[in-house]
Amino acid sequence: MAEKIIPMKGGVVAADNESGRTTSMRTAETLFRLLPMGLCVAALIVMLKNSQTNDFGSLSYTNLGAFKYLVHANGICAGYSLLSAVVTAIPRPPTMSRAWTFFLLDQLLTYIILAAGAVSTEVVYLAYKGDTAITWSAACGTFGGFCHKATVSVSITFVVMLCYAALSLISSYRLFSRFDPPTTHSGNKAAEMDVFHT
Amino acid sequence: MAEKIIPMKGGVVAADNESGRTTSMRTAETLFRLLPMGLCVAALIVMLKNSQTNDFGSLSYTNLGAFKYLVHANGICAGYSLLSAVVTAIPRPPTMSRAWTFFLLDQLLTYIILAAGAVSTEVVYLAYKGDTAITWSAACGTFGGFCHKATVSVSITFVVMLCYAALSLISSYRLFSRFDPPTTHSGNKAAEMDVFHT
Repeated sequence: MAEKIIPMKGGVVAADNESGRTTSMRTAETLFRLLPMGLCVAALIVMLKNSQTNDFGSLSYTNLGAFKYLVHANGICAGYSLLSAVVTAIPRPPTMSRAWTFFLLDQLLTYIILAAGAVSTEVVYLAYKGDTAITWSAACGTFGGFCHKATVSVSITFVVMLCYAALSLISSYRLFSRFDPPTTHSGNKAAEMDVFHT
Repeated sequence: MAEKIIPMKGGVVAADNESGRTTSMRTAETLFRLLPMGLCVAALIVMLKNSQTNDFGSLSYTNLGAFKYLVHANGICAGYSLLSAVVTAIPRPPTMSRAWTFFLLDQLLTYIILAAGAVSTEVVYLAYKGDTAITWSAACGTFGGFCHKATVSVSITFVVMLCYAALSLISSYRLFSRFDPPTTHSGNKAAEMDVFHT
């Protein structure tokens, strides 16, 4: 009987440590999920307020499809970040379906934000440099303020993208670690039980 | 002793099944890694041969930064696809470092290809529609053939992107399954051994 109690005591201590580690990890993940929310809102506001009128005419973010997509993508991202932070903050027993949902949605959001950053970068690049072969003029000579604000918004979007790439890694790692410790623990225990019962 | 032999025999049969399943899975993964290689080369060739000269002037893919990036991204992707297919085809005992390398590189390639597809889509979109507010003319009226070929190349690139999104999922799943069955098996065996030795 002594051999049976020792591993079980060890198991309880391990479970307590695990629980403490899980709580601090949950807090850290919740905060890390709120960070891109703030950044998305910042990128969104900078782009929403981005319009310039001068002698040559008027230019607003609504004139460019890429910037409209950037605003929508940042809006979706801010909403998802808040929602996922709330879901992460609530202490609940981990389930495989939740781990998979987080993994797939984090991945999808990374793609959406990356695409938004990429198309907007291309437009900002063309606005600064122009393209003589295709007769597109460099608009930033006349709309410098507009281009500057757009660059700021796009830069913030790329920081959001990096956050999401990291969140994708974390959510996939959480999916791995879900496979790892529980199986070993319960597997060993089940094996021990079976053997002791025979 | 009888109890000891039965689980070990079961283990050997399971290992044989596992080995057969692994071989067919490896073949399938190798072929699935060669598919984007073919597509990348196709997208690359279509874009490399894309130039048009008419009365209004001459337009080549080298005039547009986004299309040059598309060509480079497809080149890198084709090279990586071939290399990863070769590495996958060679039967070797699975290691954690290899699983992590595949996972991270597949992820990175997905981002590179997605960004290439996104920026090129934006240029094709602008070339078709133009943008009156920023005084960019729709070039596809005069360079229809150029725009058509560019669209084909970009479409193929998006198919490559979907392949890589799937490969990212597969490589992450392989990383999970690496955590899953071996730990349970060896964990159980180790537990049995310990118990039988006491």
